[in-house]
Amino acid sequence: MKTNSGRFFEDYRIGEVIPHAVPRTLSGGERALYHALYPARGALFSSDDFARTCGLPQSPMDDLIVFHTVFGKTVPDISLNAVANLGYAEGRFLEPVYAGDTLASRSEVIGLKQNSNGKSGVVYVRTTGTNQHGVDVLQYVRWVMVRKKDLQAPAPDTVIPDLAGAVAPDDLVIPAGLNFERYDFALAGERYRAADYAIGEIIEHVDGITIEDAEHMLATRLWQNTAKVHFDATFRPDGRRLIYGGHIISLARALSFNGLANAQMIAAINAGAHANPCFSGMTVRAWSEVLDIAETTAPGVAAMRLRLVATSGAGTKLRGDDGKYSADVLLDLDYWALIPA
Amino acid sequence: MKTNSGRFFEDYRIGEVIPHAVPRTLSGGERALYHALYPARGALFSSDDFARTCGLPQSPMDDLIVFHTVFGKTVPDISLNAVANLGYAEGRFLEPVYAGDTLASRSEVIGLKQNSNGKSGVVYVRTTGTNQHGVDVLQYVRWVMVRKKDLQAPAPDTVIPDLAGAVAPDDLVIPAGLNFERYDFALAGERYRAADYAIGEIIEHVDGITIEDAEHMLATRLWQNTAKVHFDATFRPDGRRLIYGGHIISLARALSFNGLANAQMIAAINAGAHANPCFSGMTVRAWSEVLDIAETTAPGVAAMRLRLVATSGAGTKLRGDDGKYSADVLLDLDYWALIPA
Amino acid sequence: MKTNSGRFFEDYRIGEVIPHAVPRTLSGGERALYHALYPARGALFSSDDFARTCGLPQSPMDDLIVFHTVFGKTVPDISLNAVANLGYAEGRFLEPVYAGDTLASRSEVIGLKQNSNGKSGVVYVRTTGTNQHGVDVLQYVRWVMVRKKDLQAPAPDTVIPDLAGAVAPDDLVIPAGLNFERYDFALAGERYRAADYAIGEIIEHVDGITIEDAEHMLATRLWQNTAKVHFDATFRPDGRRLIYGGHIISLARALSFNGLANAQMIAAINAGAHANPCFSGMTVRAWSEVLDIAETTAPGVAAMRLRLVATSGAGTKLRGDDGKYSADVLLDLDYWALIPA
Repeated sequence: MKTNSGRFFEDYRIGEVIPHAVPRTLSGGERALYHALYPARGALFSSDDFARTCGLPQSPMDDLIVFHTVFGKTVPDISLNAVANLGYAEGRFLEPVYAGDTLASRSEVIGLKQNSNGKSGVVYVRTTGTNQHGVDVLQYVRWVMVRKKDLQAPAPDTVIPDLAGAVAPDDLVIPAGLNFERYDFALAGERYRAADYAIGEIIEHVDGITIEDAEHMLATRLWQNTAKVHFDATFRPDGRRLIYGGHIISLARALSFNGLANAQMIAAINAGAHANPCFSGMTVRAWSEVLDIAETTAPGVAAMRLRLVATSGAGTKLRGDDGKYSADVLLDLDYWALIPA
Repeated sequence: MKTNSGRFFEDYRIGEVIPHAVPRTLSGGERALYHALYPARGALFSSDDFARTCGLPQSPMDDLIVFHTVFGKTVPDISLNAVANLGYAEGRFLEPVYAGDTLASRSEVIGLKQNSNGKSGVVYVRTTGTNQHGVDVLQYVRWVMVRKKDLQAPAPDTVIPDLAGAVAPDDLVIPAGLNFERYDFALAGERYRAADYAIGEIIEHVDGITIEDAEHMLATRLWQNTAKVHFDATFRPDGRRLIYGGHIISLARALSFNGLANAQMIAAINAGAHANPCFSGMTVRAWSEVLDIAETTAPGVAAMRLRLVATSGAGTKLRGDDGKYSADVLLDLDYWALIPA
Repeated sequence: MKTNSGRFFEDYRIGEVIPHAVPRTLSGGERALYHALYPARGALFSSDDFARTCGLPQSPMDDLIVFHTVFGKTVPDISLNAVANLGYAEGRFLEPVYAGDTLASRSEVIGLKQNSNGKSGVVYVRTTGTNQHGVDVLQYVRWVMVRKKDLQAPAPDTVIPDLAGAVAPDDLVIPAGLNFERYDFALAGERYRAADYAIGEIIEHVDGITIEDAEHMLATRLWQNTAKVHFDATFRPDGRRLIYGGHIISLARALSFNGLANAQMIAAINAGAHANPCFSGMTVRAWSEVLDIAETTAPGVAAMRLRLVATSGAGTKLRGDDGKYSADVLLDLDYWALIPA
């Protein structure tokens, strides 16, 4: 068998570093497609001029283009036999990525825990994206539940990594030169700076987008994410194609422009859960909650910690009385954004 | 409420200049997407080499990429609460736009007229697109019917701008250097120059394209046009997503290649009406009528005034006996194109 | 009639060279769209860095972008009135194409044979794609069955070109500088070199993609291929849009990454048949058969002759007992790929 059947739980070893295949050079093409696939309007990622007034040499690739590109490369090695994508932690964007940069990706196995049923286990990896200069551009931890192939394979020693509940404000990496002192709020689309938001404030982002299969497949292929379940309508008994969770992240983040237009860059991903599956025909909406606000060392730049929730319904109820996610919640993402102070 | 609920009729003042948010840098990516979304084949917008034989430094962005980009930025300020897009006038392309250029957009309120029902009014704006050098690239007048939010708000003084029925040939701006004396008709795809067309001539463009929801949403997002009605299938009672009128303009213009392959550049938009709504599943066809032919000062370059009609049917009947647009007419656009003399 | 109604069988003359219209400049945009439309993961076409370790100045355009672009230009002159696309032969890629290159296309009529029914005939053309420097980048022979318009037109002398069953290994053109001696198998995604494959070996590519109408229309427009049957749901009695055969070629080739990740570049197309029509909703899978393996003069570079079969079913049965293609076979393509020796 020359085709890749993916790794199973028993194939991972603590400390192992897996280099992922197929490095990718990004251009204005991926950027344009990102704007066609998502209603992204952040001025810093739309205009070279705007980016320069913020101290950057030109408009960088949207942070989530970087995330999806780095993530997509991990799929053949990490999640081809995954039963569930369980969580994210300690995600940090370390360096902006520009058109012409080439990204590669590698993952270190940092945790393993076989499930009590003996049929699967949880694999924790720390994934790092690097550019063509060998500079790290993104790092995050992800853990997934992976099937065992050989049920007789011995359980590994349980190692559960000690992960931060959220990236501390002091650990956020601010892009070199970033400066919001000459920030143009009119061109950005809204007048609100960090000081205008209150911790606990809820923002309903008002817009909704009904998803088509053609769209999420274009997106998922663009990131070279090859998981069958997104593309092959014969794969699930119900004949539906599961939408890549990252597609929902980008959709929700883009929808959040309306009320968070100045939350320009993502600095960190603290946690994330794909609470319910999403399929074409659903209308995705989003709301955000302000979780924290912090200073940074960069001139005029504050950090705002946000909960971003995507739903296929209309309300802002995150969980039911049983503590479980409401049935219409698709995504619960906890992240740090950079915003004028 | 931090989200943008848009302006209502009573929020506009004569003379007010509204700078629109989110400038946009265009690249080869937007250009490639334009070719994927529309069957565009104009040689001048397809080939750098062909554009150079026409005296331009390289192939510019399709005129309608410029139009949609400039127009899209106006939506949050002008038409979020619009009931109807009523008309266009005095549209002129003032300077070619190339990959790497950054476009911004602003609108001046030049007319206001409250409707007799007191519930809405007509707003006239003159919108100007500029590039990163502050040079105007496009200017056009649009008027829309906008709802009032506060029905008690006093009616403004009625001001109806004096608009030209069509841009005069002498007012057309020809791109610096444009020269059709070495024009290669074989490479352009047809042998007809302005002299081969007769005023009153009708050209049926023979091709048809059946529209999918995924396509028009990709296009509309690409122009950062965020009007809910294009994206959210729960917005209209019938569960259909209204297709952005500009999508039909581009589709019809691209279809008109077949019979008007040499009508390379749009110099002006004289008038336009979105006669009937368009939805996915419709098969769009187009026909053109030659309205006028004029000389220009550029070597070998003539101007041809064209009516471009998009239909969801098969005929070329623009209006019924009652003078109203036929039910299958989607678009009636009056424009000036530049064509070899 | 100013619109192009295409050529009919009686309009072709042996030896005639037809220059095709609308040259096209390709950019990173077309490249990004290719990655969104197909699950393409070949490292050499994904990463500038990887391409440089293979001796190329940067990552070239995917071979099939070149093929589709050159092919698309021929449609208005060759296959607008074609009843069937009968075959390909002697296809060779002659020079890599890079972002910024402009492609043009011309075809020489090399064979004609009227059918015995007198209503149609077979036209053989040798099509050549050239870049902006006048260098040939691709050449292939295609033959199509074309309707006669004037049934009284006399039959031409029958000329059937003498075509090679396959391009001889010695006739393959290896891109200047190509060198697989420093090839990074880990980054490419698989460890198999030519020596690891056996002639007669069958590789099932395991992945499947269910096609949507929006996708194949985006692709087909991108190559400026305007054949009505791909776009107009009213064209066929069954209301279905026939999918451009080249879309299936690209889909199958991209799916073949899984098992043939190192078969990086296509050097030649020996033969090809679009065995059955494909429509949206079908789930396309692919399998390959190794037909031959040969040395080349380039360091570390071998050539592998492959049969690539796309199917809408699950098996690998190419033909039934009657010798005809199985009903679920969409494509049978015979090509040479370059792979580490």
